[in-house]
Amino acid sequence: MSGTLPILTKRGDTLRYDRDVGQVSILDRRSYPRDVTWIDYASAEAVAVAIETMVIQGGPPLAYVAGYGLALALDQHADSSADAQRRVLQETTARLARTRPTADDLNTLLRAAEQRGHAAIAAGSHPGDAVYSFVAAEVARGDRVAERCGVRAAELLTDGDTMLTVCYPGAALNWMLYTAVVKQGKHIRVLPSETRPYGQGIRLTASQAAEIGAEVLVITDNMPGFCFQQEMISIYVTAADRIAMDGSIANKVGTYQNAVLARHHHVPFYVLGYDGPDQATASGADIPIEQRNGDEVLIFNGVRLAPANVHGFYPAFDVTPPELISSIVTDRGIYRPQMIARYHDDDREAPLDVIPLLGSTE
Amino acid sequence: MSGTLPILTKRGDTLRYDRDVGQVSILDRRSYPRDVTWIDYASAEAVAVAIETMVIQGGPPLAYVAGYGLALALDQHADSSADAQRRVLQETTARLARTRPTADDLNTLLRAAEQRGHAAIAAGSHPGDAVYSFVAAEVARGDRVAERCGVRAAELLTDGDTMLTVCYPGAALNWMLYTAVVKQGKHIRVLPSETRPYGQGIRLTASQAAEIGAEVLVITDNMPGFCFQQEMISIYVTAADRIAMDGSIANKVGTYQNAVLARHHHVPFYVLGYDGPDQATASGADIPIEQRNGDEVLIFNGVRLAPANVHGFYPAFDVTPPELISSIVTDRGIYRPQMIARYHDDDREAPLDVIPLLGSTE
Repeated sequence: MSGTLPILTKRGDTLRYDRDVGQVSILDRRSYPRDVTWIDYASAEAVAVAIETMVIQGGPPLAYVAGYGLALALDQHADSSADAQRRVLQETTARLARTRPTADDLNTLLRAAEQRGHAAIAAGSHPGDAVYSFVAAEVARGDRVAERCGVRAAELLTDGDTMLTVCYPGAALNWMLYTAVVKQGKHIRVLPSETRPYGQGIRLTASQAAEIGAEVLVITDNMPGFCFQQEMISIYVTAADRIAMDGSIANKVGTYQNAVLARHHHVPFYVLGYDGPDQATASGADIPIEQRNGDEVLIFNGVRLAPANVHGFYPAFDVTPPELISSIVTDRGIYRPQMIARYHDDDREAPLDVIPLLGSTE
Repeated sequence: MSGTLPILTKRGDTLRYDRDVGQVSILDRRSYPRDVTWIDYASAEAVAVAIETMVIQGGPPLAYVAGYGLALALDQHADSSADAQRRVLQETTARLARTRPTADDLNTLLRAAEQRGHAAIAAGSHPGDAVYSFVAAEVARGDRVAERCGVRAAELLTDGDTMLTVCYPGAALNWMLYTAVVKQGKHIRVLPSETRPYGQGIRLTASQAAEIGAEVLVITDNMPGFCFQQEMISIYVTAADRIAMDGSIANKVGTYQNAVLARHHHVPFYVLGYDGPDQATASGADIPIEQRNGDEVLIFNGVRLAPANVHGFYPAFDVTPPELISSIVTDRGIYRPQMIARYHDDDREAPLDVIPLLGSTE
């Protein structure tokens, strides 16, 4: 196999903050890979709107963009008084944190960045420097987390596997496939589920998996059941926008229904869990589900598909309980979901703890 | 409620054969209701291609169009020899029957029409007359079947119900909703699942249900699981392109996965079964599943959504086993799926036999 690591693998390749120019630049994920378009943003408010309108997607990438937006706002107030800087720091953090509620990365990163900004102001140094440095380091740390998570997850793939995915599971998926296909020479077929309405599966996962050298067969979101029934699927893999301490995960809507189908058909479901659970979220019931505008379901590429007198409904995420998950793969090890709380006490090389729940317990 | 019976209720309103002009005309269901476009076809071959390219959809409607296409071919050979007419009859029947393999209506109607054509030729009369009269009578019979089936099914709806659907369940759904909403004054909310790639749910079911006066909330095909989980759905209803004698049903792809989810969440699944099972199909395993061109998944409204180096997969139907079906509603009565073979021995007013399988037996 001669595949390469595609562009979405390293986050700095698709999002950056040029402090000299005063612009945050984002590869537009709404049209990638059909169009490879970068959009520049010159204010934190514009960055917030870009996050809300899905120019960027994925828990860590959108958190990084938000962090850079915060640095941008502070840079624009480099000469302001400390009080003014504190106000900018608080208000901009709050604005950016409101953009999308479900993934924990955004809030976690922004709160940590805000702390560093306040500390810098208190120390009489420029908070923009502190926030920028922190976010850039987070991007680098996140890339290492994604690589470790993905390389571990590759061990779960067997030559000849067919993997169902939902949405785009992010950089860890790229590392998982790259390791399995290119490094280990396994033949892997990926069935990306389209993931309406934004099509992250048919665009992002399909393009990344194909570049790596996996065989890609795109299906629409109503076809996983048929494929399970025909025994085409041997492994189901998604990411998680948030992992609760009880092992529940929130991820793109559709994740849950495929988890039910996987269990019904005795296929293991592995979650790419990156850097583990959110310690502030005790259970799945504590995860807020973003309700987006129903029109996003009704209108596609500018064409209204539905008649005028109906409404759309768009819960952007769903929650899958731990009993439907075989294991959660993190940078520190592979955990049964019920054991995921252990993550924060483990070092980086925790032993594998894979217990695929292949016998249905329903 | 002041809803009306929408256009798809009576099949003659959306498909016809004008023998004087020599044209079969079809309301284009690929773009309805956004565009209300009729397309005229002047040969049986053109009618066959229209069926293959989804200008018409639904088991009975496409069978009627095929029947009219056969009559058209025979009318074009009204002055030919009996031998030539027999050849046209055989070849055209075979061509039209090959268009779509899953629904039984097409084959059943064409074989019966062919017999009548041969009998007419043997009797020295015009086979076009015989086939046309037979098909027109079948359209009228089918409308009565749909009305009786739908009126019975309305009894399954309770005021306040929220109904999940897949694809467009046809004229019986219109009668079901019209009876429940307009005649019985029940408030019914319909969640049409979009039904990618052709969007029969977001276009056809959404428009018909809204015209009747139901509340319509469109979801994409990855959302039923979330809606079940949130206890938003109280009843799941689809049609069937073919019912086997063992109570298995074939219907638009996605039907099966929602049936698994309905069972998992203890929600009843009712099938609008029109005129019952196909006596020539013993079990679900005997139903051929149409494999359509995978590009139909990748290209939407002329825009290729997926990258160039991937393939699509499009099984157009799936099979749901009887154990996942609560009841099958027909013009003659409501049957547990395991009892559906009884249909052909029953008269038109068989007793209701509703045993919703609410207790999961998994």
